[in-house]
Amino acid sequence: MPDLYGFDRETTVVPRDPGRYDGELHEGWRIGLGINGGLLLAVAGRALAAEFGGGQGTHGEPIAISGYYLSAARPGAVSVRAEALRRGRTLSTGTASVRQGDEERLRVLATYGDLGRNHADVRTSATPPQMPPPEECAGSETAPAGFRKHAPLLDRFELRLDPATAGWTTGAPSGRGLIQGWFRLPDGREPDPLALLLAVDALPPVSLDLGVAGWTPTLELTVHVRARPAPGWLRLKHSTRNFAHGYLEEDAEVWDSAGRLVAQSRQLARVRS
Amino acid sequence: MPDLYGFDRETTVVPRDPGRYDGELHEGWRIGLGINGGLLLAVAGRALAAEFGGGQGTHGEPIAISGYYLSAARPGAVSVRAEALRRGRTLSTGTASVRQGDEERLRVLATYGDLGRNHADVRTSATPPQMPPPEECAGSETAPAGFRKHAPLLDRFELRLDPATAGWTTGAPSGRGLIQGWFRLPDGREPDPLALLLAVDALPPVSLDLGVAGWTPTLELTVHVRARPAPGWLRLKHSTRNFAHGYLEEDAEVWDSAGRLVAQSRQLARVRS
Repeated sequence: MPDLYGFDRETTVVPRDPGRYDGELHEGWRIGLGINGGLLLAVAGRALAAEFGGGQGTHGEPIAISGYYLSAARPGAVSVRAEALRRGRTLSTGTASVRQGDEERLRVLATYGDLGRNHADVRTSATPPQMPPPEECAGSETAPAGFRKHAPLLDRFELRLDPATAGWTTGAPSGRGLIQGWFRLPDGREPDPLALLLAVDALPPVSLDLGVAGWTPTLELTVHVRARPAPGWLRLKHSTRNFAHGYLEEDAEVWDSAGRLVAQSRQLARVRS
Repeated sequence: MPDLYGFDRETTVVPRDPGRYDGELHEGWRIGLGINGGLLLAVAGRALAAEFGGGQGTHGEPIAISGYYLSAARPGAVSVRAEALRRGRTLSTGTASVRQGDEERLRVLATYGDLGRNHADVRTSATPPQMPPPEECAGSETAPAGFRKHAPLLDRFELRLDPATAGWTTGAPSGRGLIQGWFRLPDGREPDPLALLLAVDALPPVSLDLGVAGWTPTLELTVHVRARPAPGWLRLKHSTRNFAHGYLEEDAEVWDSAGRLVAQSRQLARVRS
């Protein structure tokens, strides 16, 4: 499929039987030994998009999607089973299961719809994260070498960290629990709702800004996609307010180039320190 | 079962076959024509608790639970199918389906564990909501008569609204998207993790504080239970920051009498105005 962008090629799912899809997890999406959780969610999300109609005007776009991570996904073949639970007039809800061999990696619940429906009433009080333009922010190449070695996925997208929230890269975490940055896919591939499922999990773990360097595997990640993103850079903000009792929540916001809050997500991660 | 508190009696599930439970949704938990979403989640949560061991020391307590609401639940008989997806050493993950007759009402994914495990490292930056003591807050009896008539569930627990966020009860919503209050179950029934699944959905829709009186059905509700709550009143805070494009998110925090953030939740609701 030479005409696809990298992200689309590497999240492709091929229908096999009704409700069954085959995919391939590329080594390049690895972080540590496992595949990035957002990428895995996007693979499941693509199978559900196919199940619910696949295009604009049907129910081909994720509105809310929750993934529960059962075991670490590895590079290699993957199978997705997608099932509709309810097909409604404006929304459809379904479930998906991502497996590798005998092991289930991810179980998903999601509601899909059409983000093109027009609603004029907007009363957002959230404000976009303030940070210098991308060209004044630090690229992934400035991440600590020890971190980069274990995170080939850093080459899969462009990240530019806000210097004000990147103290942890030089051994000076702020302790606030906040990491911000710019994000875009390479090759001019513009963002869409599916790419937002990746974007919400693209920044380094916010625990790094608390000075906690340990592994923080995701138990659960829920994403709300609130609008189709405009072309251009996305602004990401990850924060945590309750690092406690062996777990932390990570809240993510994704803002598009038009200044709209296009996705919100929260994940619960375990602290292994 | 005369020795049970009302909440426990009315969320009881009786094992029928392996992984199958029967329950009964009491008319008293109705809001509008449907049963309260938090109560329904607690019923599913109780079946999963039974499936994963039921007691402390096993995996009988919800850590993360996500409910996708498929159709409005009505008072009457309900059946729950619970299934373990993974039983781990410290956590187990499962799914549950709540049905009434041929209709599925709710599909759930959840991770259960033991909240009694000790973790000393707490770096919470969140601060508890400030409000006057319960005796200086407005009880549910001050809610608008038109609202009370459609919400018998207001008699199922004690709510005391912070006057600073209750302007909407007298036609003067603040427009901030914030409602706070105190919560407890009646009869001296102290809070536990299961009761938190109800507590996160107990306050009136935060859209009322935006001056939006329409119905806001929940699509998805995810709860993270972070600690066993101490006895006494709970403090609830509901807020929204992104009322847009026909949807709003509602973030809830539950604080216990010991000043700990014991649960965080977020739901995505549709705006029907």
